[in-house]
Formats: sequence, C-alpha cells, structure tokens
Amino acid sequence: MDDPRDIASLDRLFNPASVAVIGASREPHKTGHEILASLIRGGFEGKIWPVNPKADEIEGLACYPDLTSIGQAPDLAVIVVPKPLVKGVVEECARVGTKSAIIVTAGFKETSEEGERLEREILRTAQRAGLRLIGPNCLGIMVPKNKLNASFGGDLPEPGVIGYFSQSGSLLASIVDMARAEGIGFSKCVSMGNKADIGELELLRYFGRDDDTRVIAGYLETITDGDAFVREAERISRTKPILLMKAGETGAGREAASSHTGRLAGTQQAFEVVFERAGIIRCESIRRQFDYARALADQPLPAGQRVAVIANAGGPGIMAADALEGEGLTLARLADETQARLRERLPNAANLANPIDVLGDALADVYEFALGQALADANVDAVLAILSPHAMTECDATAEAVVRVAREARGKPIVACFLGAGRVARAVEILHRGRIPQYESPESAVAALRIMAKVNRWRNRPKRIVRLFPVNRRKVEQVINRTLRRGQSEISEMDASDILEAYGFVTPRGQVAASADQAANFADQIGYPVVLKIWSPDILHKTDVDGVKQGLAGRQDVMDAFDLMMYRIPKKRPDADILGVLVQETVAGGSEVYLGMQRDPRFGPLMMFGMGGIMVETLRDVAFHLAPLTAEEAREMLASTRTYQLLRDTEDEGRPAVDLDALAEGLQRLSQLVTEFPQIQEMQITPYVVGPEGTQPIAVDARIRVAEA
Amino acid sequence: MDDPRDIASLDRLFNPASVAVIGASREPHKTGHEILASLIRGGFEGKIWPVNPKADEIEGLACYPDLTSIGQAPDLAVIVVPKPLVKGVVEECARVGTKSAIIVTAGFKETSEEGERLEREILRTAQRAGLRLIGPNCLGIMVPKNKLNASFGGDLPEPGVIGYFSQSGSLLASIVDMARAEGIGFSKCVSMGNKADIGELELLRYFGRDDDTRVIAGYLETITDGDAFVREAERISRTKPILLMKAGETGAGREAASSHTGRLAGTQQAFEVVFERAGIIRCESIRRQFDYARALADQPLPAGQRVAVIANAGGPGIMAADALEGEGLTLARLADETQARLRERLPNAANLANPIDVLGDALADVYEFALGQALADANVDAVLAILSPHAMTECDATAEAVVRVAREARGKPIVACFLGAGRVARAVEILHRGRIPQYESPESAVAALRIMAKVNRWRNRPKRIVRLFPVNRRKVEQVINRTLRRGQSEISEMDASDILEAYGFVTPRGQVAASADQAANFADQIGYPVVLKIWSPDILHKTDVDGVKQGLAGRQDVMDAFDLMMYRIPKKRPDADILGVLVQETVAGGSEVYLGMQRDPRFGPLMMFGMGGIMVETLRDVAFHLAPLTAEEAREMLASTRTYQLLRDTEDEGRPAVDLDALAEGLQRLSQLVTEFPQIQEMQITPYVVGPEGTQPIAVDARIRVAEA
Repeated sequence: MDDPRDIASLDRLFNPASVAVIGASREPHKTGHEILASLIRGGFEGKIWPVNPKADEIEGLACYPDLTSIGQAPDLAVIVVPKPLVKGVVEECARVGTKSAIIVTAGFKETSEEGERLEREILRTAQRAGLRLIGPNCLGIMVPKNKLNASFGGDLPEPGVIGYFSQSGSLLASIVDMARAEGIGFSKCVSMGNKADIGELELLRYFGRDDDTRVIAGYLETITDGDAFVREAERISRTKPILLMKAGETGAGREAASSHTGRLAGTQQAFEVVFERAGIIRCESIRRQFDYARALADQPLPAGQRVAVIANAGGPGIMAADALEGEGLTLARLADETQARLRERLPNAANLANPIDVLGDALADVYEFALGQALADANVDAVLAILSPHAMTECDATAEAVVRVAREARGKPIVACFLGAGRVARAVEILHRGRIPQYESPESAVAALRIMAKVNRWRNRPKRIVRLFPVNRRKVEQVINRTLRRGQSEISEMDASDILEAYGFVTPRGQVAASADQAANFADQIGYPVVLKIWSPDILHKTDVDGVKQGLAGRQDVMDAFDLMMYRIPKKRPDADILGVLVQETVAGGSEVYLGMQRDPRFGPLMMFGMGGIMVETLRDVAFHLAPLTAEEAREMLASTRTYQLLRDTEDEGRPAVDLDALAEGLQRLSQLVTEFPQIQEMQITPYVVGPEGTQPIAVDARIRVAEA
Repeated sequence: MDDPRDIASLDRLFNPASVAVIGASREPHKTGHEILASLIRGGFEGKIWPVNPKADEIEGLACYPDLTSIGQAPDLAVIVVPKPLVKGVVEECARVGTKSAIIVTAGFKETSEEGERLEREILRTAQRAGLRLIGPNCLGIMVPKNKLNASFGGDLPEPGVIGYFSQSGSLLASIVDMARAEGIGFSKCVSMGNKADIGELELLRYFGRDDDTRVIAGYLETITDGDAFVREAERISRTKPILLMKAGETGAGREAASSHTGRLAGTQQAFEVVFERAGIIRCESIRRQFDYARALADQPLPAGQRVAVIANAGGPGIMAADALEGEGLTLARLADETQARLRERLPNAANLANPIDVLGDALADVYEFALGQALADANVDAVLAILSPHAMTECDATAEAVVRVAREARGKPIVACFLGAGRVARAVEILHRGRIPQYESPESAVAALRIMAKVNRWRNRPKRIVRLFPVNRRKVEQVINRTLRRGQSEISEMDASDILEAYGFVTPRGQVAASADQAANFADQIGYPVVLKIWSPDILHKTDVDGVKQGLAGRQDVMDAFDLMMYRIPKKRPDADILGVLVQETVAGGSEVYLGMQRDPRFGPLMMFGMGGIMVETLRDVAFHLAPLTAEEAREMLASTRTYQLLRDTEDEGRPAVDLDALAEGLQRLSQLVTEFPQIQEMQITPYVVGPEGTQPIAVDARIRVAEA
C-alpha cells in the first residue's frame, strides 16, 4: 500500500519552487557548473541559488557562501561538493529545513566499506530531519513539464507520459539523448545512483499514482525489496505498463552463488517468472524499451491480436507477415466488404488480401483510402502501415495521411514502418509529431504490437483468487519447530510424511515393523510387492546405507531384507537410532511427476513442476511460478511443459488420461504449504504419482529443507 | 562450378560503356524519367541514350525514336516501355547485338499466367541471341564504383565491398537509403525482380569471383535451385561471408503444403539446416543484416571469442557482459600486466578488470590509453568500445582515438557503441568514416561480434571428408526398381531388410515359417521370447491386421499365434498373397533410437536423428543435417540432441555406456544409402537399437518410400 507521506515527499521533490546547487562551480566541464547551467538552460522558473564560498556570482546569479546565508530553505538541494563535505552539507540542509536533496557526489557504497559507512550515517541524519535523498552517486532528476533539469544528464527531453528511473546515470543520459532525437517525452527521469533512500520501489509507487505518468520504464541492476516490488508492480501494471531492463544477472559468479537446486531455477528464470507474474515487460535492450514505450505512450491498446498490414510493396509485407506469425499475432482476415471496397479504388495488380499491397506507384490518397478501410474492418484489431520510398512515393503526404487516419481511429492502434533513412526522414518526423510510433523495420513494429496486445491481455485477465484448503497447520508447525530446535535443517522422511498428510496429500500406505516376522505380516496386509525402508530419524539419505529395498514379492523376501538391514546398517552408522523398518506399499500404474519449491531470496517461493527423473534433470522440462498459485496458474504451469503433452497423450496410447485437475490441486496444496510456512526453504515431492481421473495422486517421497524464517 | 561464360556476361552487365533507356520519359515521377535522371545524376561517364519516339530531347540528351536508329549497340539496355511493347524491344536488342538488358516493366509472371507465358517467350528470344536479362519487374542495378545507377531505387550509395541481390526492389531501395545515411558502401546492388534469367545462384557465383566484393548479402523469398545454391554457398562462404534474409516461409499455407513427415521437418527447419551447412548467416531483419555486413566489411575477424569491453560507465558495461554471455562469447580475462599498466594511469575508482570502466569523467587520452592496452593484451581477441555522453565526455576526440587505435590494431577487430543520439552524432560520423562499426546498443554490437567469431570458426573448419562404406548397391537397385515397376511407392518389410543388410546394417535374426510346427522349430533355434510377423508383400502395415505378435515365450505360444494369424488375416485381406509368418528374434537390452531421412524438394536429403517414440513425436527432440554426412557431422548431430545426453548418462545409472561411434556410423551408412539412391524419398529406421560399446546396433524395422528420381 502507498504511504501517503512518501507520495507527498516525492511530490515535493519533483515540484520545487526553489533549488540550491551546493558546490556550484564557475569552471565549465565541472559537474557543479554543468548542473547549474542545465537548470538555467532548462528554463526553470523558480528560484536558483548557487552555493560556493569561493564565488560571488556564477552564470549571472548571486552566489552564497553556504546554505544558511540564503536566508530561506530551498525546496530542493543539489549537492555536488567533494565527498568529505557531503555529510556537513546534509546536516545543514536538515538544519535549515530543506526536505529534498540530490547527492550527485560519488565515492560512497560503490567504492569502499568506509564509503558505505558514511552513506549510512548521511542517511540517518537525513531521516531524522525528514529530508528525502536521491543518490548519492547519481546524475540527478529531470521534470520536463516543470522545466526542471537538476542533473548533468544533458538537455531536457520533451514533456511526455513516460516516467523513468535508472540505476545507471550514464544509461539515462543516453536514453534522454535518444529520446530528444526521436521526440519521445517524459514525465520524470530519475537517476537513482546508490539508492540510499529513494529507490525503485518508492518511485514505482509514485509513478503509479502520478497523473502525468502513463507508462513506467526503468533500468535496474539490483532490486532492493523484490517481494514488495513484485506486489506493487502486479497492482500498478493493471493500469500502467511497466517496462524494465534488468542487467547484471548472467555473471558466472552470480550464477555460481545460487543454491544447490539452483541447477533448476537460475537467477534468470526467477526474474522471468517474477516479471511475468507481476505483468512487467522485460526489455532486452534500450532500443526495444524505446520501441515499446513509444507504442504504449502514443497509441491505444489493441482489443485482440488480429493485425492488418498495408504496404506499397510485396517484400516488406511478407516480412511483416512472417514476423506476425513468429510473435504469436495473427494476420487479420479482411471482411469481404472491405476487399470489395478496396477493389473499387485500387489497381488490378494490387493485393487486396492482408497484407494489402497498394503497389509501388500508389500516391498518398490511395494509401490513405486503403488504410482507412483496413482500420474500419471489424476483423482488424490493429494496423501496421508500411511504406517503401519508391521514385513516385509521396512520403511526407503519406505520413500526414497516416496521422489523419489515426486521429479518426477511435481506439484502434496504428504503428508505422517507413523504410529507409534520408528519403523518409521528414515523413518520420511527421509521424513522430503525430504520435504515430514509427519503426525502422517491420520486425520491430511487430514486436511493439505484440507487447501492446500482451499488455491488453494482462489488463483484462481475471482477478487472482487463491483457493485455501482446510489443513492441519498446527501439526506442520510442531514438526518444523522440533526439527529446528534439534539444529537440523532437513526434515526426516517420517516427519515429511506427516507434513504431507497434514496438507491433504495421500502418501503410500505403510507401517513400521520392529521384527522380520512383523514386517512380513504387514506386507501380507498391504499386498505385494512392497518396499522396505530403514526407519531412523538420524538417517536422511537411506540409499547411502542401502536402506531401501524395492519389489519384495513375498514373505520370505521381506524377512530376508529386514534382517539384512538390521544387521548391516548399524555397522555403517553406529551412531544412528534405528526405530525399525518401514513396510510400504508399492505405488504403480500412474505417471511419475515432480512437484517442487525453491525459495528465492528476493521474491519468495518459486514453485516448480515437471516430470520425474530425466525430464527434469536432463531435459530441463520444468515450469516455474511464484506461490501462491491460483487454480488457473497451476493449470498454466502444467500446460507449459512438454511433460503435460506426454501426460495428456497417455489416452492416445490406450491408457486412461491422467487426472490433470488432481495434479493442479497438488500444486495448489504445495503452494499453500510453502506460503504458510516461510521456514520451508526448499521442498520436492518426487515422485508424485498421478493416475487416471477419479484416482488420488500419491506423494511417494518428499524432501523438505527448513530454516528459521 | 563457375561457367566462365556466365561470369563474362555479368562482367559486361556491370561494366557497360553505354546505356540506352528505352521508354525514357520527360515527365518527372514517371519511372522512365527517374531512371534516366538517376543515370545522369549518378555521374555515369559512358554514353547515355534515351529512346522514345515521342521526344527529341530529354534532360538535355538527344533522344532516339528506336534502338536501331542510335547506330550502334548499347552495352546495356534498360527497358521501361509498357508491357505489350517489351517483347518487341527485346527482339530489337537481340537484333542490334546488345548483350545485357534490364526489364523494369512489371505485369509478367507475378500477375497472371498470360504474363508468365510472355515472360518465357521473352526469355527464349534473349537466350537465342546471347542476351542476358535482369528482371522483369525490378528496380534495376547500381554499381557505385562505375557511377552507374541504372535504377529507380534512389541515389547511389558509396562504393564499398558489399555485393547485394534482392528479390524485393522496394526493400533494396530502403536498404540503399539507410546505407547512404550510415556511410555503408556497396560493390553492386541488384534488384532481381522475377529472376527470369539471372537469379541469386548466378549472382552468388559472380560475387564469389568479384574482386570488388568481399561481403555478399541478399534478400530472398524463393530459392530457385536450392541444391546448387547451397553447394556454391558452401564453397564461397569459406572466403566471403554470405548474409541472407529469407522471407515468406511461415505462411500457414506453405507449412500445410509440406509432406506427411513434414510434421518433423518444417520448411523453417530445412532452411536452418541448409544455411548452417552452407555457412550462410541468416539475418532476421534489415537492421541485423546491416549490423553484420558493416562489421564484416570494415573489420578483421577475431581469432577467438574473448572480448574486452571498455566503457566510461558501469551500466552499459554490465549490459555488454550480459549480452556476451547470452551470445556464447566470453569476457576476456585481462593479463596481470595489462591491469598493472591500467592501474598506473586510471583513477583509483576505475574498474581494471573486464569490463574496464574508465569512469564518467575520463577524457579522450585516458580512454585511448585503456583501449590500446586492452587491444594489446594477448588474452583478447576483440574489443568493444562503449561510450556514454557525460557532461565532460569528449565524444568526438574519443571517436578519433578509437579510429587511431584501430589503425594500429593489426588484425584484431574493434567495434563501438557510442550511446545516445544528438550528443554523439558527430562522433558516430567520425567512427563511420574511420570504418569502425558503430552500434546503437551494447546488445547489437555483441551480436555483430558473435557473427564475426562464427565466420572465423566457419573459415577454419576442417575440410569435409565423407567416408564411403563398401556396400551392395546392385541389390538395392534391384529392390527399388522392382518396387517402382509394380507401381508401388512403399518398400515392403521383407525388401527393406534386404536394403538395410546391403548397406551393412545388422537386422534381427529371423526365418519365414510356413507352418505352426516349423515356426516353433525356428523359435527354438532363435531363442525365446520371439516376435511373429505376418509375411506378405501385399501387407505393408502389419499392425493394422494384427499381423505382429510380440513376447512369445514358448513353443505353444508360437504355434497358437501362427495359427491365429493364418486363420484371421486372410479373412481381413482376402486379396493378400501370404507367404508365411516371420519368426524373429526379440531385440532387447539396448536403447531405442530413430534414424531417418526426408528428401527436401529444394535441398535434397535431410537426415534426422532422435530417440524413438515420445522423444521424437512429442518432444521434437530431433537433429537435422543434410546428407552426405561426415563422421564429425554425424557426431555433431548426435551431440546436439537431448537424447544424446540420455544415452551418455546410461553409464551413470549403472548400465554400460551406449556405443556412440557405432551410432554415428549408422547415420553415415544411411546417409550414403540415400545419397546414392535419389529414388528414396523418405526413410525411417525405427527402432535402431544400440547397446554398449563393442556390440552391433540392430535395425529392427525400416519404412522406405521411393519414387522415380
């Protein structure tokens, strides 16, 4: 939930009536000069106070020796003094009552432990005074609408609807530079630097509430409070698209640091899952982020995925059609009436089916007519307008026509791809000014359309309802606490069975026998073949001590196996307290799958589903999703694996179909368990044996690792 | 092989001393005017003769009523007359002795059957006279070095080393326009149109020999003689990189048209396999093709894949490192001495390990020093130079430094990524002029480096040596001929066994029995369990008539199964000539895989390997490769599947490792069979049972479909 105080303090940050630049400099090329010059050049209409004890005047403004001598508290202080002086300046800000400061100076957490300590001290000083900080080690902020350029990131971009936060100042400067060249506007740009105080979470919340921001974009290297960030993103992305670049996740070192079962869920996968769940669109490059942001900022969302392509040549139309299919969109099937109307006006050789080809000598009026017809067709959700510059092509007039048609489009998006460079340069400008997203290639245009369709699907998806099963929480709590009290982290098989049963899983029938004779009697009751397992709280890995014997088909086999275990295992593990041998039913006849969970340190419980054995280990056919799972999400997880196809296909092979609802329920129960017990770090139920519809799946074995939460 | 006559005729086409424009027009915006104007504007230094009976003079040049009245044969005729007149003009060209013509006029094969007929007639006329044709339905050609712009594709690009052919004129015009804007040069640009005469194959051969062309690029929608094209590409790509865009392959219709087993090998897959084999780099967009072409044209190839990244900020360096890992390149480990030297000159806070961060306030001299050090390091194969425009960054001077360092690089490539737009615009120009490939984002730069490394690997790969096994060709020929003579296309199981044995495959032991008693006797000799199969040349799908019975464990079972088949099957198939029942050994204990071939209509035999059953059908875990296979290629096919991992892992599970060399040999033998018999359209050996090392794999069953080749 938003903290109204945070929102108010960021409102103050972005809307100051006065700015002091502490460490302002007369020397061009110094950061302290550049920031002051940027403020002035940007046209900021509030008060600007340079502060520097060694100057009387800078850039025509009276200069103050210190903050106090200004005589009133600036709304915003930009701090560019050398590192040793920063703490003193922050204290002065606190004293005079300034409520927002940007620390541009570097050399803190990013360079040394001493710097990190200093950064923490500065933060404490600020927090005590209710002073909010951007940085340190940042470029500053830009608010084009307020003509506020409190940064050294270059000139202000145009005002617009994109809110941007960046963990790399240098990247932000490049993005703003590109945006200026392409006429893309921003509501706010924030270089977050070390994020000592204000970070991505708070900015996300703020942009979520900010009326000037309709698209949220950012570049992140680390996410500070992943869990909260995802929850906020999930909420905000229902109304505003969130576009993120996330870097720094493939480093060999970082991968190596992931846990044992990190073999399955790498860092990259965690981010993919988390972003997907939160409705965040992950962008693989600045260019892609631009391409998507422009489309989302300037055009309405398509209601579906049926795209009409209009071009004045065959090749680019074909490329677009290829790309549409590759991106999971569809080439709209034009209505007969649309084609009839096109036939009346277009030359004979023109292609009236989608992609529409108006031919190379088409003038702007013909293009406009065809575009209008395509857009009006009820079978069309979005239009891609392609133009190649032929000798007679009226590039500029066609661009104007596209802008005109788009104005009448009433809710359907148009994106453009005018191919070439010099010959379409002016046309591209016309498109940009007319808020038509223009792309260099059909593929990029189609990629943007895909994202628009995806955002639309995301907005319209039903509310998440997580089913809660009646369970025995108390029982699980006891088991976990007992395990932790003993200083252990792995839950024994005996206890794991109890946990599974407490959450409604069916486990194999079985009883612990104390003698060979008793074991054989139990086996008679259970029915052959049976499995024998050594039963000791001290032996976690039974197979290591030959403590599991399968496929025992008769009394004599059971008695032999019992006696051999009781004779041999105490020699191998004299320390172990052996309680007997478990005689267990052999579970057969179903398909063996794998349900798992691995708690991600940033985002929480990551659920996993796959087929047992080779399908998971070698083929990596695993689906991931964050818990808690809804029924739909559980079914989506199943459906996204190849394993699912195998399970479904059992019917074709003459075996009855696997009960997929029962399987999905298993995932939901596990999801509830790991959500309710944050102590569970890692859990695998394997094999989880699912039979045909109407039968209960059986959780044969489980490994659970716990830790103090 | 090159036909020297073809080379000579293309040489004439690209190097004319005189050009006639037939259908030249006075009216601006008419194609006939645009082409003439382009020729003049381009600065062509030979003779230019406009031909038009209705004009005396166009653009200051004397105009002729027809070709004959010029009085001498133009070296090149550009034909822009209306469609009905084209044939007459071509006849006139033939008469006067012109040897090259470009037919710009459209309305032939691409529009109607009548147009297709007319196109064929024109081609015959030209061929009889030794007149070579470009088009019809094309934009023309450009040869910048000769200042020859015989096209309406816009102004000439700079002279350069890229030879380009395009099946879409419109795309070519856009590419040339972009190239002009970015300073990319071409040796020749050809708009091929309908490819009535000169097509991609001949142009590929020509560019392969052309000293002015060092990089070959193109856009294709169809490949006319796929097999020959691939063979030529394979040869030429060893010295000149070939970059292709291939469109029009995902259409639902085209997919549906692929054959029955097209379920496995789609059109896309065939292209991937073929391009890979031929060393062709497939480009997914114009932008990528540009990016790659520029790198290959302007920089040497890296000897390995160790890349040093140098940047003046953290973020972009991290993005580059991520991209390197994603593209399979490696971040070079800088030598200690390099780092020591960097330490002497760079500020304390700079990052001396790769990616090197010289920090945001670094001036050009520091950047140049660091770049030079990185490039000199023996652990570095290529350098990526990233620059973000900070307030104090000397963008232009740094660009000049990069150009300077590259000049001293002696064989190591440098690519650049100067981020931003307006603030780096001049720097980007300096880089372009200095032949430093410059990219908009670190990801694009890294993608180009990957292609450079790939081209280098391709050039250095060993010569292909295909092993030929001694086989019994005569036997196979007999079987195929007999099958075709009977009007059949599927080879019976009996005959398939013969074919397999003739090519050195081991098949299961077995004998055909005529009575139940004889069947039981054979089974006694073979050893139980055995398989019984109905034996009839007329029954191809035995399981459809219950003609296969497995797992027969004793005499009585064999006799019962025999009698039941002989009693029931004649009732189901009274027409079938039943020769008896095959008693066959049960093959057990190995791993079952799938060897297959499917003949692609354009490229020839496409080999397939995968694991039997679900791994192929559901999981699509299949490797493809064009036959004939070398031993390395066969092993690469195996290694590229997940199936391979499973086979290799049998050892871990306590079973002996599968004999992978024997498996590769099976693929090579099949490759030889389908290469030597073009009649074989499709073949599957399944299961092919492979056991541990030293055992012979057994080809249990084969399906072979043949047709007249």
